[in-house]
Amino acid sequence: MSEIPYKIYLSEDEMPTSWYNLRADMKNKPAPLLNPGTGQPMTAQELEGVFCAELVRQELDNDTPLFHIPQEIRDFYKMYRPSPLVRAYCLEKKLDTPAKIYYKFEGNNTSGSHKLNSAIAQAYYAKKQGLKGVTTETGAGQWGTALSMACSYLGLDCKVFMVKCSYEQKPFRREVMRVYGSSVTPSPSETTQVGKKILAEFPGTTGSLGCAISEAVEAAVSNEGYRYVLGSVLNQVLLHQSVIGLESKIAMDKYGVKPDIIIGCAGGGSNLGGLIAPFMGQKLRGEADYRIIAVEPESCPSFTRGKYAYDFCDTGMVCPLAKMYTLGSSFIPSADHAGGLRFHGMSSILSQLYADGYMEARSVPQTGVFEAAELFARAEGTLPAPESSHAIRAAIDEALKCKETGEEKTILFGLTGTGYFDLVAYEKFHNGEMTNNVPTDEDIAKSLARLPEVNG
Amino acid sequence: MSEIPYKIYLSEDEMPTSWYNLRADMKNKPAPLLNPGTGQPMTAQELEGVFCAELVRQELDNDTPLFHIPQEIRDFYKMYRPSPLVRAYCLEKKLDTPAKIYYKFEGNNTSGSHKLNSAIAQAYYAKKQGLKGVTTETGAGQWGTALSMACSYLGLDCKVFMVKCSYEQKPFRREVMRVYGSSVTPSPSETTQVGKKILAEFPGTTGSLGCAISEAVEAAVSNEGYRYVLGSVLNQVLLHQSVIGLESKIAMDKYGVKPDIIIGCAGGGSNLGGLIAPFMGQKLRGEADYRIIAVEPESCPSFTRGKYAYDFCDTGMVCPLAKMYTLGSSFIPSADHAGGLRFHGMSSILSQLYADGYMEARSVPQTGVFEAAELFARAEGTLPAPESSHAIRAAIDEALKCKETGEEKTILFGLTGTGYFDLVAYEKFHNGEMTNNVPTDEDIAKSLARLPEVNG
Repeated sequence: MSEIPYKIYLSEDEMPTSWYNLRADMKNKPAPLLNPGTGQPMTAQELEGVFCAELVRQELDNDTPLFHIPQEIRDFYKMYRPSPLVRAYCLEKKLDTPAKIYYKFEGNNTSGSHKLNSAIAQAYYAKKQGLKGVTTETGAGQWGTALSMACSYLGLDCKVFMVKCSYEQKPFRREVMRVYGSSVTPSPSETTQVGKKILAEFPGTTGSLGCAISEAVEAAVSNEGYRYVLGSVLNQVLLHQSVIGLESKIAMDKYGVKPDIIIGCAGGGSNLGGLIAPFMGQKLRGEADYRIIAVEPESCPSFTRGKYAYDFCDTGMVCPLAKMYTLGSSFIPSADHAGGLRFHGMSSILSQLYADGYMEARSVPQTGVFEAAELFARAEGTLPAPESSHAIRAAIDEALKCKETGEEKTILFGLTGTGYFDLVAYEKFHNGEMTNNVPTDEDIAKSLARLPEVNG
Repeated sequence: MSEIPYKIYLSEDEMPTSWYNLRADMKNKPAPLLNPGTGQPMTAQELEGVFCAELVRQELDNDTPLFHIPQEIRDFYKMYRPSPLVRAYCLEKKLDTPAKIYYKFEGNNTSGSHKLNSAIAQAYYAKKQGLKGVTTETGAGQWGTALSMACSYLGLDCKVFMVKCSYEQKPFRREVMRVYGSSVTPSPSETTQVGKKILAEFPGTTGSLGCAISEAVEAAVSNEGYRYVLGSVLNQVLLHQSVIGLESKIAMDKYGVKPDIIIGCAGGGSNLGGLIAPFMGQKLRGEADYRIIAVEPESCPSFTRGKYAYDFCDTGMVCPLAKMYTLGSSFIPSADHAGGLRFHGMSSILSQLYADGYMEARSVPQTGVFEAAELFARAEGTLPAPESSHAIRAAIDEALKCKETGEEKTILFGLTGTGYFDLVAYEKFHNGEMTNNVPTDEDIAKSLARLPEVNG
C-alpha cells in the first residue's frame, strides 16, 4: 500500500531519554497551585508533606525544558514501550477518505492505558526517597492498576482507595490490583477520619472520586514513610506523559510525516498533554503549526462550558487550589461511560494553552462516541476504551470532512487504552439503552457559584 | 544489560510469507481422519461438505512443506503482528537464574490470544470460496472472539454457538463478539435439531463444548453458503499457527540465539504445534536438537495419562474420528480454570510426534500454575492467561533447575494470551479457594472403555 508500515515501533536506542517540559516554552506559564487556607502559592515545603521531594521539584519547575529519564524507569518502559504508532490503513479504507490517519496506541499493557508512564515515574522517586509506600485513589481502576504494577516491580507498598461503587461493580480491576500485591480499600472507609466522617453523615453512600482522594491524602500524611500520588491533572504527570508525544514525533519524523491535526481525549489532561507536548512546543516556539483538538464528553464539558478560574481539585477540599477550566468541584456529571473523563476540571497547563488560543476543544455525545468505537473496532481490530473513543469520534469526523473536501490531511490521535473492562457500556450501547446526558446551563451555573473566594 | 533488547519486533519485510507444514518432514505421518460410519479415511469430498475446499486441501496435504500466505491475510497479520519475542530479563532477575528466558507473546490483540492467526486464514478461504458465512463453537470465548474479528474484517457472517454456562457467566466475551457483529447463540439451543434433542433429553442443561460443536456443524451443513470452522486440533490450524514459531525463529536467528528448551501449553495443540513447528522441523531433519516440552493441566492429562487411539473429537459423535492421545470423548475434566486446555484429546500431529519420542510432556497442578502466573505478572508486568501459565510454570521450573546446576540454558516458551477475562479464577486463587482436581485412574479407565470400535 505504501512505504509506511502498519505499525511503527522505535528500536530501544531510538526511545526518548528525557521527558519534555512544555512549560519551558510557554510565555504565559500555568498559574501556580494555591494554599486553600492562605490563598498564597504552595511552597515546595508545603507540597513535600504530601508528595515526594523530586516530584515537587518537577511540579514547580516551569523553566527546565528537559528532564533526564532515570535508567531504572527506562528499563521499565522497555517492558511495554515503545508503544506502536499505527497507520490506520483499514479505517481509512472503511471511511473511503483521502485523509491519512495515525494513532499512538498506549493500551498494550496490563493496566490497559497510558497511566503506567507516570505511575512508574512516581513510584520510582518514592522508592528513591526511601519511602515505604504510596497511597492513591482510583475510580474505574486504570490508574490504580498502573500504580500497582509499578509498585510491585519496585517492591513498594501501595494502598489504593477505590470508589466503593466501582469496588463492588468492577471486581475485576480490583482483582488485578491484588495480583500485583496492592491493598485495595473501598471508599469511604473506616480506616480514615474523613472516611468515618462521611460514613457517619451519609450512611450507605457508594462514594465518589473526591472522597477517595481525601482518604488517600489523609492516609499518606498520617502514615510514616508514605506519600500521595495522583494520575492526572498535575504538571509532573504531563511531564512524564510527554513520552507519548516524543515517541510519536520521533516515529513520524523518521518517515517524514507531519500531522496537520492532533487529537486527544481530555479528562484531567494526562493523555492529551503528553501526546501534544513536543508538537505544542514547536508551535509555541513558532517552528511549526498544528491544529490541536481536545475532545471531551458532553456530559462533562470543562473546556467547552466551564470557567477558567481557581477551584478545588477534590470535593473534600483538602487539596491545593488549581487554576483551570472547571465546572465547579461540586459538579457531578450524569451517569455515563466516559470513565476517566469525568473530572470536573482540567490540567492547568492545558487550561492556560486553551485560554491563550493554542488549541481547540469540542464536546461529543456518548452515543456518537460508541458508534465511532464500534466502527473503529471492526476496521482496526482493537476494542477501544470509551475514553479513547472520544478522540476516535473526532478523528473520524475530521477524516469525513476530508472526504467532502478532497483534502489529504494527516491526522494523529491518541488511542489511550483498551475497552476490555468496559463491556457493560458496550452492551448498553448494543441494547439501545444508551443515552446522552448533557448538563443544563443551570446545573453548571449552580456548581460554578461555589468557586472558592480567592477568585475575588 | 545486554545487546538483546527487551522486545524483538520483526519489521514487516522480515515477517514470514509462507506457513510451514511440519507434516512434510515427519517420517511417520499423522494418522488420517476416519469416517465414523465406515471406518475409512475421510475423503476430500466428504470433508468439503463441512469445511472450505482450500482448507480441506491443507488438512489432507502431508507433503508440501510451505504454503504461501495470501497477501490479504498478511495485511491482516500486520494489524497485530509481528508479535514481540520478549527477553524476560525481569523474570530472570527475580528468579536469580543463569538461564536466559524468552517468550513469544501472542496476547496483544483484542481476542487476547494466538487464535486470531488461524481465524483470519479460515475466514479468508471461506470468503474466497464465495460463502456467506461460517459457524463455530466457543467455550470461554477466545476462539469465538478471534473468528468474529476476522469475519468482521472480511464482511463475512459469523454464527457462534457458545456453551450456555459460559454465555451466562462470561457476558463480556459474548459482548466483544457482538461488537464485531457476530450472532452468539447459547448452546444447546432450539435453533438446531441436535440442540432440541439435547434440551428435550436434559432440560435445564448448561451445555458442553461437545454439544456446541454438534450444533455448529449442523448449522453449517443445513444453511446454504455456510461452512464450519474449528480453532484447534486440526492439521490446518497447526499450519496457520506455524507463524508463531517462524517469527520466533527469525527473531532468535537474527540475534544468534538458539533455544535449548522449548515449552508450550497444550490443550488441542494449536499453540504448541505452531510455536515448535520450525524447530521441530530441524529436529526431524537432523539439523538441530531441542528439548521440547508440552505442558498440560493435571485435571486433563491427555498426553501424560491418555491413550494413543482413534476417538471422537466431540461428545455428540458427529465429527470424524481422529487418532490422538485421548482421555476418551466422554471424559469430563473437573471444574478448573485451565480454559482452553480442557479438551479430551490432542492434535494428531503432536500425538504422532510424542509417540515417536520427539517431545516430552508433563502435567502441572492448578495452584502451581497460578503461583507461577502471579510471579510472572509481578516481574514482567503482563497478566497471563491461565492456559499460558502452564507454560510459565514449566519455564520457571526449568530456570530454577539451571539455578541449582549453574547451567546457562536458553528457554523459549509461548505466552499465548492475557488473563483479562479470567479474573474470577485469580480471585479464587487469592482467596485460597483454589483446589487441584486430578482425575482418578478409574475416571480415565471408564471413559477410555468407550473408545470407538475402529481401534479393534
